[in-house]
Parts: sequence; C-alpha cells; structure tokens
Amino acid sequence: MITNNFFKKKRSITLLQICKAIGIKPEYKDKKITDIKDLENAKINEISFLHSTRYLHLLKKSKAKYVIINKKHLRIVEKYCNPIVVQNVLKSTAKITELFYPGSLNDTMDENISKPIIKKYKKIKFGQNVLIGKNVKIGKNSIVGHNAIIESNVVIGENCIIGNNTLIKNSLIGKNVRILDGAIIGKKGFGFLPDVKKNFRYPHIGVVIIGDNVEIGSNNTIDRGSLSNTVIGSNTFIDNQVHIAHNVKIGKNCIITAQVGFAGSSIIGNNVSIGGQAGISGHLTIGNNVRIGGGSGVVKNIPDNSRVMGYPAKNIRNFLKDNK
Amino acid sequence: MITNNFFKKKRSITLLQICKAIGIKPEYKDKKITDIKDLENAKINEISFLHSTRYLHLLKKSKAKYVIINKKHLRIVEKYCNPIVVQNVLKSTAKITELFYPGSLNDTMDENISKPIIKKYKKIKFGQNVLIGKNVKIGKNSIVGHNAIIESNVVIGENCIIGNNTLIKNSLIGKNVRILDGAIIGKKGFGFLPDVKKNFRYPHIGVVIIGDNVEIGSNNTIDRGSLSNTVIGSNTFIDNQVHIAHNVKIGKNCIITAQVGFAGSSIIGNNVSIGGQAGISGHLTIGNNVRIGGGSGVVKNIPDNSRVMGYPAKNIRNFLKDNK
Amino acid sequence: MITNNFFKKKRSITLLQICKAIGIKPEYKDKKITDIKDLENAKINEISFLHSTRYLHLLKKSKAKYVIINKKHLRIVEKYCNPIVVQNVLKSTAKITELFYPGSLNDTMDENISKPIIKKYKKIKFGQNVLIGKNVKIGKNSIVGHNAIIESNVVIGENCIIGNNTLIKNSLIGKNVRILDGAIIGKKGFGFLPDVKKNFRYPHIGVVIIGDNVEIGSNNTIDRGSLSNTVIGSNTFIDNQVHIAHNVKIGKNCIITAQVGFAGSSIIGNNVSIGGQAGISGHLTIGNNVRIGGGSGVVKNIPDNSRVMGYPAKNIRNFLKDNK
Repeated sequence: MITNNFFKKKRSITLLQICKAIGIKPEYKDKKITDIKDLENAKINEISFLHSTRYLHLLKKSKAKYVIINKKHLRIVEKYCNPIVVQNVLKSTAKITELFYPGSLNDTMDENISKPIIKKYKKIKFGQNVLIGKNVKIGKNSIVGHNAIIESNVVIGENCIIGNNTLIKNSLIGKNVRILDGAIIGKKGFGFLPDVKKNFRYPHIGVVIIGDNVEIGSNNTIDRGSLSNTVIGSNTFIDNQVHIAHNVKIGKNCIITAQVGFAGSSIIGNNVSIGGQAGISGHLTIGNNVRIGGGSGVVKNIPDNSRVMGYPAKNIRNFLKDNK
Repeated sequence: MITNNFFKKKRSITLLQICKAIGIKPEYKDKKITDIKDLENAKINEISFLHSTRYLHLLKKSKAKYVIINKKHLRIVEKYCNPIVVQNVLKSTAKITELFYPGSLNDTMDENISKPIIKKYKKIKFGQNVLIGKNVKIGKNSIVGHNAIIESNVVIGENCIIGNNTLIKNSLIGKNVRILDGAIIGKKGFGFLPDVKKNFRYPHIGVVIIGDNVEIGSNNTIDRGSLSNTVIGSNTFIDNQVHIAHNVKIGKNCIITAQVGFAGSSIIGNNVSIGGQAGISGHLTIGNNVRIGGGSGVVKNIPDNSRVMGYPAKNIRNFLKDNK
Repeated sequence: MITNNFFKKKRSITLLQICKAIGIKPEYKDKKITDIKDLENAKINEISFLHSTRYLHLLKKSKAKYVIINKKHLRIVEKYCNPIVVQNVLKSTAKITELFYPGSLNDTMDENISKPIIKKYKKIKFGQNVLIGKNVKIGKNSIVGHNAIIESNVVIGENCIIGNNTLIKNSLIGKNVRILDGAIIGKKGFGFLPDVKKNFRYPHIGVVIIGDNVEIGSNNTIDRGSLSNTVIGSNTFIDNQVHIAHNVKIGKNCIITAQVGFAGSSIIGNNVSIGGQAGISGHLTIGNNVRIGGGSGVVKNIPDNSRVMGYPAKNIRNFLKDNK
C-alpha cells in the first residue's frame, strides 16, 4: 500500500458538506465520508463516481456506497449504490477531490526547497546546485546530478543515479533506478474539463511509482496520476523523449524506445517492447509479451503475446502483407 | 498592436542604401524606407518581398510600394508595385532585415541577466537561481520557478505560473498563463537558406505571443516568428513535448495533446483539438472546430468543423472505413 | 583519427585474461590483445566479435585475428579467423569492453566539474552558473550559455554558441557550431541486453563527433556510440526535439526537421532532408541526396537521390498515387 504524503488530506467530510460544495440537495441521511476514490479502489465510507456506462462493471463490484452520477444513468445504477445526481460528474468529482485535498490544484514550484543538508544524507553524492525539498528520502549510495530538483516528500531508493537537470516531484522511486538527464517526473497530468470560457482544472492527487532497476531516458515526461497512480514496473527500460501521461501503468521488463507516447490511463503488461515513435491511445489494455513496431498507432486493446505494427496498429503479418 | 522591443530597429534606411546592401543598382528615385514587412502587413513606406506566385493575391492588396522579386515574376507583378529584381529573394530579404534590425541574427544568451531585484518585482514569488533580463515585466501574483531564465524585455501578465528550468525570450505572455517545467519559448525558428558550402541564416525578428489562460506543457519548444509572430490563442491548453515552429498561429480554446508538431507558418482556428503525436505541415490553414486524430499527418488545408485522421489525414469516416 | 580521452584504456590484456573474464577455456597460445573493436575497425592485435551472419562480409575483410562468436557460426567463420566460442556474444563483448575500459559502464555526473576558470578560457564568454569539467577545450570567440554543463575532456571549436541548459559530455565538436538550449549530447545510448531478472548494461565507449557549421536544435538528445561513434557531418542543421541514437552517422549538409528520430547505427548520406516526425529504423543505410517526407517511417535502405514518404516509406510517387 502506497502512502501518499504529497497532499494533506482532510480526515473526513460529511455528506452534507459535500453536497453543499457541489450545489445539490442531500437526499440521504448525513454521514462521514473519508475519501474520494475511483470505483475500483473506493471503500465503504468513501465516495466514488461514474461518468460512463463503460465502467458499470466496476460499479457493480465497487464497495462505494455513494456514487456521483448523471441523471441519465440513474435507472441503471440505483440498485448498486446510493446515487448522487449532478449536472457534470467530472466537475463535481474535481470539486470533491479539492475538498478532501485542499491545495491539490496547485502545481507550482516547491518553496520548501534548498541545498541538501549533507549530514542528513549520508553516503549520497550530490552534484552542484542541487535543490532538495522537505522530508525527501534518498537511499544510500545514490547519486543526484547537477542542477537536479527533488521536491518535498519524494522517496528514492538505494543505488539510484539521478541525472543532471532532472525534476522529480510526487514520486516514489525504487532502488537501483537510473533517471537520465532532463527527465521531468511527477508533474500534474494533462487532465481538465474543456470550457470555451476558461478550462476547468481538476486536481491530480496521484503519484508516480517507479519499480526497482528501472531506467528512465533523457527528457522523458512522466505525469502523475489524477485519482489513481502512474506506475512503471521493475526492470523496465525507457529511452529518450518518451511521454507517459497520467494514470498509465506499465508492467515489468518492458522496453520502450525513444519518442514513444502514452495517452492517459492505459495499462501495459509485462515484457512488452515498443518501437520508437509508437503511440498508445488512452484507456487501452495491452497484454503481456506484446511487441509493438516502431511508429505504430495503437488504438485498441491488444491481447497477450501479439505482435502488431501500423497505424492503426494491426497484426504484423497483415501489416507486412498489406505493405509488400 | 504589439510593441516589439526585442531588437533595435533603425528608424529608416534609404532605398539607395538598401539596393547597395543587396548588390543591385537602384532603378527608382531615392526614398526613405521605414521597415521591411510581409505583403500583408507592409505599409506604404515599407519594403516587402514576393518569392512565390502563391502570394500574388497578397501582393495585389499590399500597400507596399517597393517589392523584392525574382526576374521571372517581373511581368506579373509590375502593375502592382515597383519591383526590385534580385537573384535570390529570400537572401536579399534577409539582408535587408538585418539592415533594419542590426544584430538580429544573434540568438545567443542574454548577457544582461541577473538574479531578480526583489524590490522591483513586488508580489511575485521567485524560486532559486532564477535569472531575469533587463526590462522584464511580470504581473502581480505570478510565480517564477527554480532555475528559470527570463530574458530581457519579456512581458508576463498577472497570476502566471512559470515552471522550473523554463527558458523564455522574445515573448509577450498574457495573464493567468501556466508554463510548465522545461519549456523553451521564443528562440529563433528553424529558418535558413540551405547552401552546400554553408547554410545562410536569416533573422527572426518576430515574437511569441501567448494569450490569457493558456497552458504550455513541459519540454515544449515554441519558436518565435521570422517576419511575423508565433501566436497561441487564449484558453488553449498544450500538453508535453509539443513543438511549434516559427510563425504558427493557433486560435483560442484549442487542445493540443502531447508530442504534436507544427511546421512553420500554419494557421490553426479556434476550438481545434489535436490528438497526440499528430503533425501539421507548414503553410496550412486548419479551420475552426476541427478535430484531428492522434498520430495524423495533416498535409493540406482542413475546412471548419471537420474531423480527420490518418497519414495523410482524411475525413475520419473514410479513415475508419479504410481501416476496418 | 579521433582521440578518445573519455575513458581510460588498458594498454593491453592477455588472451588468457580475456578468456578467464568471460568464463571460457583458452584454445590458443597466449598473446597480448590491445583493444576491442568492431570487425570493420579492428586491427590485427585487437579482438572483435560477430553476432549475426549479417556481418559475415565484414568478417571476411576484417584484420581481427580473434573473434568472439556463437557456436552455431563456428563452421562458417573458422576459415577467416581464430574463433572464440561463447554462449552470448554481446554479453561477452560487453565484459571484454569493460575489461579494456574499466569504469566505462558508469554514466553518472562528472564530479570534476566547477565554475570555469576565466583565465584558462580567454576570449570565451560564459553565462551564469556554467559548470565545466577537467581538461575541457573551447575555441576562441565561443559562447557558453547560462546553466550549461560541459563535462571533462569535451572539445569545442572556435566561434561556437552553446545554448542555455545544455549538457555535453563525451563529445568532440567542430567550429562555428550552434547547440541550442536544452540539448543533451553524449550520454550513453539505449543499448543493453534484456534479461527478465535484470537487464544487462554494456559500456558505451564511443563519442559524439560534430562537424563544423552544424546546428543542433533545442531539446535534442544525441547519444554517444557504443563501440563506434555517433557522427553529425558539417553544415548539417537539426531542428528541435530530434533524437539521435548511438552509432548513427549523419552526412554533410543534411536538414533534419523537428521531432525526427533515428534508431541506432543507421548511416545517412550527404544532402539528405528529412521532414518533421519521420523515423529512421536501426541499422539502415540512407543514400546521398535522399528526401524523406514528414511523418515517414523508414524501415529499409534507401538508394541515392530517392524521394520517399509514407509509413512504411516508399517512393513518393507511389505514396501520392496510393493516397489520391
């Protein structure tokens, strides 16, 4: 279980307060709610949300008692939960998230940052002009490169090599990890609600979790999750200029070549290799042992052990046949 | 009207001096010329240029009296202006630009840079190791992240959040703008005249203009214009690792996902959404409310309200039909 | 001939020591071996390796007497050299490389770095917070931007402009070169032997060689070679966000537009132009005067003077015909 210390959370908020904050009348007896989570992870006293019938199967299994929904889904959800009907599910979810995590919409610089206090970090080598936040933990024998910025509460394991000019925040990093120069890890994702007057931002309270023995390439951008986390599995190696959006989960032993891009919330299996410049659309599931050719555009789920290529990506045999 | 203080401009140069600088004999009576502009923006006492009949319609409407051209276009332009015939239109244009804007070919570091003088910038938070040029204006309640470099004469509005490790030059930025970590804004464009002996650089005297409420992603590169400006409209949000070349104009309320690339001088309408890794060729016009699918390669103009996908991009229905 | 001072090399190692290090019994009389090189460059007293019959033609011409091979290639190579049979050619090659170049697997920050000693670098302008390694050579009239890091033993010619926030290591750079802001040059390549337990890294002892009059765009990543070098020819201009992998060789007078990616070990001719976002697969040969359209995915060799486009890239006429 991950401990996320990056945002202060209110211990509980009453259902009444929540309803007031999102501008609706409470229909249920008041009750203490302890957090907001997605359907999969919510516990009985936590509030959740459903904004598409695509996630109905998760609602059926969810422990969440109170669920934010649109009116049009009322009929199909009411037997599984106590629905709270709103105009805009994602907007209300954003507001409730900010209620539980005040200040979570800010993604500005860490002001609690300073040169590392050497006696606090024994057996760690720091380059020049390094800036370290409060309560940062770094394992022994790690190296932090010149001009690196590691913001408050980040955890880095033993024997890690953190490159020059890297920026790391809201991240939990295993041991024996290499993060190459210029990588930017843990900033908020590109998630917001479009509005022609002024786009509406929602909080990103997730973290980036990086397993052991991982390599992150130069100038990578790895965004933290919104309500869930962004995860890079152990022994996965990532080349330069790769972009990994919020909530993406990448398995173990993957090889991801330069300039690949992952849209938000996709799940990638173990032992997956992805050729340079390929793109993976959002909300997909890529199986284990999948091989994706360079330049591919993956727009649908891919089963285990497949080999695909093309834009849109298809079975590699078909791709080769079509392009003889 | 934008005031461009980034390069010192000579108040006027005589036609005689101009002709001498580009190595031709003057055919007209001498006269004071006050600037060099493209056909669309040139005023009566400003010199302009035409290097392709593609821009003939602009010449017909142009106020410019003197226009640099190739011999082969002499016949078709002479009734619209006083043509000045040269061997190489773009090279001569470059030379005249440098004549008006001496030093404009340099794109080196700003030497007039130093730690911010706190009393000069009230109500602004600066991170550590920030470097600020001369005559930089920053609106109140803005935040400038660690290691950021903001070069001389840049203007930033109120309530902006400028990320860590950002580099900003030759730019005019609205209010409530977020520029995320590592973005590089305002450097010269990738514009030059190829020559097997030694490529010939031309000046980039344009600026980057960023509207209100814009978000610029991490590690973006947004180049300033050559003779016109690069523009990002209000409330447009841009994800990480996007490249925007010189002279590109992007409208309002656009959503541009990660790793998209824009070649030079394209014009993008309002409310346009572009999926990850798509590329937009140079000198195109993309209408309002256009949706471009991820990975697309757009190589021709797209009318308002269209939805396209593919490489080359086509109507999305055709794309889906072709890829069943 | 390039002098590579970036790693200390042992003058010679006996064949006996080499065999012991890779865990095999020596079959030949002991002998002094002076280096490890690829088949093309190895001299008579240097050891080499063959891991694919694809390189058999190089073996036939190679001067290397002792060659690391797999058992399955024994029959076909034994008349050309003294084969040394191992389980895993690349792993053994990596081990021998590290034997000759102790410490070459490290790619951490340069600890011998400090503010430039002004009297040592005459006629050179340094920005603020610049860090320079030991034994760095910079030609006169060069400019090194703010926050730049130039690691030990790097050589930079005259009249160069090195941008802000650049990171340069293991590189030899000609004169009149511009390296724009945020470029990362000379880090190790993305070369390793995958292993589900823990990937096996091999040393990258090559350098990045950049010719005269080159321009390298912002946020480029150019990795150094593994056993050979990464080379950018004179007067080649490269736009922003381009990735160049280890061992790539790019000719003279090339124009490479933004977001292009090169996989490892490809060879690009002179006067080649490559449109934005194109990708070049690994181990290819692209001829002289080739033009590659934007967004193309090049997966096979391209002869001189060709014009290609598409994914996979084909003759541009066919591409246009297929996409009418």
